[in-house]
Amino acid sequence: MHVEDIKHILQRKLTSKRYTHSLGVQQTAIMLAEIYHVSTEKASIAGLTHDCAKDLHDEELLKYARQFDILLDGVCKHQQQLLHGVIGAEIARSEFQIKDDSIINAIRYHTTGKENMNLLEKIIYIADYIEPNRDFPGVENLRKLALADIDKAILQAFDHTINYVIAKGELLHPLTISARNFLLVQLKVSRSE
Amino acid sequence: MHVEDIKHILQRKLTSKRYTHSLGVQQTAIMLAEIYHVSTEKASIAGLTHDCAKDLHDEELLKYARQFDILLDGVCKHQQQLLHGVIGAEIARSEFQIKDDSIINAIRYHTTGKENMNLLEKIIYIADYIEPNRDFPGVENLRKLALADIDKAILQAFDHTINYVIAKGELLHPLTISARNFLLVQLKVSRSE
Repeated sequence: MHVEDIKHILQRKLTSKRYTHSLGVQQTAIMLAEIYHVSTEKASIAGLTHDCAKDLHDEELLKYARQFDILLDGVCKHQQQLLHGVIGAEIARSEFQIKDDSIINAIRYHTTGKENMNLLEKIIYIADYIEPNRDFPGVENLRKLALADIDKAILQAFDHTINYVIAKGELLHPLTISARNFLLVQLKVSRSE
Repeated sequence: MHVEDIKHILQRKLTSKRYTHSLGVQQTAIMLAEIYHVSTEKASIAGLTHDCAKDLHDEELLKYARQFDILLDGVCKHQQQLLHGVIGAEIARSEFQIKDDSIINAIRYHTTGKENMNLLEKIIYIADYIEPNRDFPGVENLRKLALADIDKAILQAFDHTINYVIAKGELLHPLTISARNFLLVQLKVSRSE
């Protein structure tokens, strides 16, 4: 599907604020892709579409989960909004006819993260955090760090997310924890080499 | 083995500060056991012995792990000190001849926690956190909460631990995360009933 057609569909699927956010993630992802030598085309498509399921209601997410045969893990059973990455990946594949698995996975894991993320997955994860419309204490430093060292930026984002989830009294997704542990070990090993 | 004999061995195994802490956990565990109608004898023994492996060096912990056929999980591979619960449980069984599995498990999970802890496990977990020698911001409130609602106190302790581990840049044990998620869901369900 052509990118302009995807944009038209997204404008119907998303609130105007979410659509603006999606364009911000797309632009940030393209910029990071240039820095980290990843396909800017893939970064652009993944950035644009990453939140295509974010404005679905819980009921709709659950309906899609049944349709796509997605098993709900212990956390998603209670916090259906966390399904929007997994469901979004399937919508991107079926509705936007995106065939590239690296784009699909970048959409799938953009909220939870996962162990051993590849560069495109990392770019979408952090672009979602730092795109120009984001505003939270420390976002400017995180923007600079993402340009200099994407792994350290993602580790900070994981820590920020975990602290935020705890403050809100919500469930922590095990993928985020194993993603953070994996990255932390990698960074410690690379520091000691 | 008689409790006085266990005490003699612990005094050799532990620093004087750790031994004092162990006596504090023992006393606090007995008090909580009375409130929550759990065997005070089991609480006493589990509280006294919970840290019996805490003053072992990493090398010694790894040696015990081989001896007891304990497989190291992804986190314990990098943070051997987290093994002291699991190793302590095996030392309690073999050296102190403790046969009661509920005592053994309370020792085993006193640092990480786990999903669906029983009352004795909860008592040792929180007694370790609030015994009289502990001093950190909020400990007084946590002491009061533990007397009134042990589940809410443990949830606060999990949150405190996770924040602390993140601030120190260390790995999060998945058992703590699943223990917290489990308890949070249980508390939410009980609130909505």
